[in-house]
Amino acid sequence: MRTVDPEKVAAKRKQILDAAIECFARSGFHSTSTAQICAAAGMSPGNLFHYFPSKNAIIEAIAQDDQHGMAELIAHHAKTKDSLTAIENIAIAMMELCSDPTYARISLEVAAEALRNPEVGALLAANDTQVKADLQALLKRGIKAGQIDPTLDTSMAATWLIALTEGGIGRVVLEPGFKAKAHGPTLRTIIRRFLQIQP
Amino acid sequence: MRTVDPEKVAAKRKQILDAAIECFARSGFHSTSTAQICAAAGMSPGNLFHYFPSKNAIIEAIAQDDQHGMAELIAHHAKTKDSLTAIENIAIAMMELCSDPTYARISLEVAAEALRNPEVGALLAANDTQVKADLQALLKRGIKAGQIDPTLDTSMAATWLIALTEGGIGRVVLEPGFKAKAHGPTLRTIIRRFLQIQP
Repeated sequence: MRTVDPEKVAAKRKQILDAAIECFARSGFHSTSTAQICAAAGMSPGNLFHYFPSKNAIIEAIAQDDQHGMAELIAHHAKTKDSLTAIENIAIAMMELCSDPTYARISLEVAAEALRNPEVGALLAANDTQVKADLQALLKRGIKAGQIDPTLDTSMAATWLIALTEGGIGRVVLEPGFKAKAHGPTLRTIIRRFLQIQP
Repeated sequence: MRTVDPEKVAAKRKQILDAAIECFARSGFHSTSTAQICAAAGMSPGNLFHYFPSKNAIIEAIAQDDQHGMAELIAHHAKTKDSLTAIENIAIAMMELCSDPTYARISLEVAAEALRNPEVGALLAANDTQVKADLQALLKRGIKAGQIDPTLDTSMAATWLIALTEGGIGRVVLEPGFKAKAHGPTLRTIIRRFLQIQP
């Protein structure tokens, strides 16, 4: 009887997803064949099929990994006691992530796919709902602590914090030479002025 | 000798582009054939070819029409004397446009295509540069009039005004039930607090 080594499985899974991300970013989701992913990952179709039965399963796994990554990023920064600073740091980290060229390309591919594929759409919406709920909790914590304007609608504010960070994706595509790092202070100014108690 | 009626040419052109937008929004740029566009437009391939020699020419025309639309939208709102209000109105109008479901779908398709097709990428970047320059001019006008914070970097501020409005695209895709109209006041608050002279 063969035993399964969870570390080996995780490593193989990562190897496939990294290869798929590379292919999708280069050629787009629809123009990439499973044969191309196999070649990039250096494995046979039978082996790939063992981990992911379809291209859809791969794109769903990419979206799930993204969800875990976002949750970790938020949990890490939420430890900062000052809620306003925590939100600023999360937004800047998300913006920097979104504006990585490969991440931006994959995000556009996955978002376009979500419009036509209800399963992918549901996954992305679930991810978005989670990020929004986490930001809303931080906004409420900041209001309670007297750091954030209590007259703000926390649901709408959370929506626009996400929209702002996602804006980085468009900037990478449309503004040649856009450097996320250089824009951190401006993003912090926008968020601070928006959220702080108004004089 | 046949004479060309410019109005008829413009009407035919619009008929094709409307049909193409419908097809691209439904099936994506890559999965749409020129035969499908012909069927949707109710014309023969020869007739379509007369107006647009390739699918690329169609997508370029869509991007160009978008550029003209944006320029008109900005010119219209820029007439408002108060520069801060003008910028807010432009951002809200752009956000409402971006969050139209068909516009959002086409924008994602075209942006994804821009990553792989240098001609489309150059067109989108040129459009973006123009919008950014227009917004920057309004920011400078507002600073001169004592309405906008003179310590802001107008180039970075313009970048984030665009990023904010484009954020609407992500919201339409990821937040079921997102209503752009309901979010206008929040967007106005973010922009006003960001740009106004700080107390």
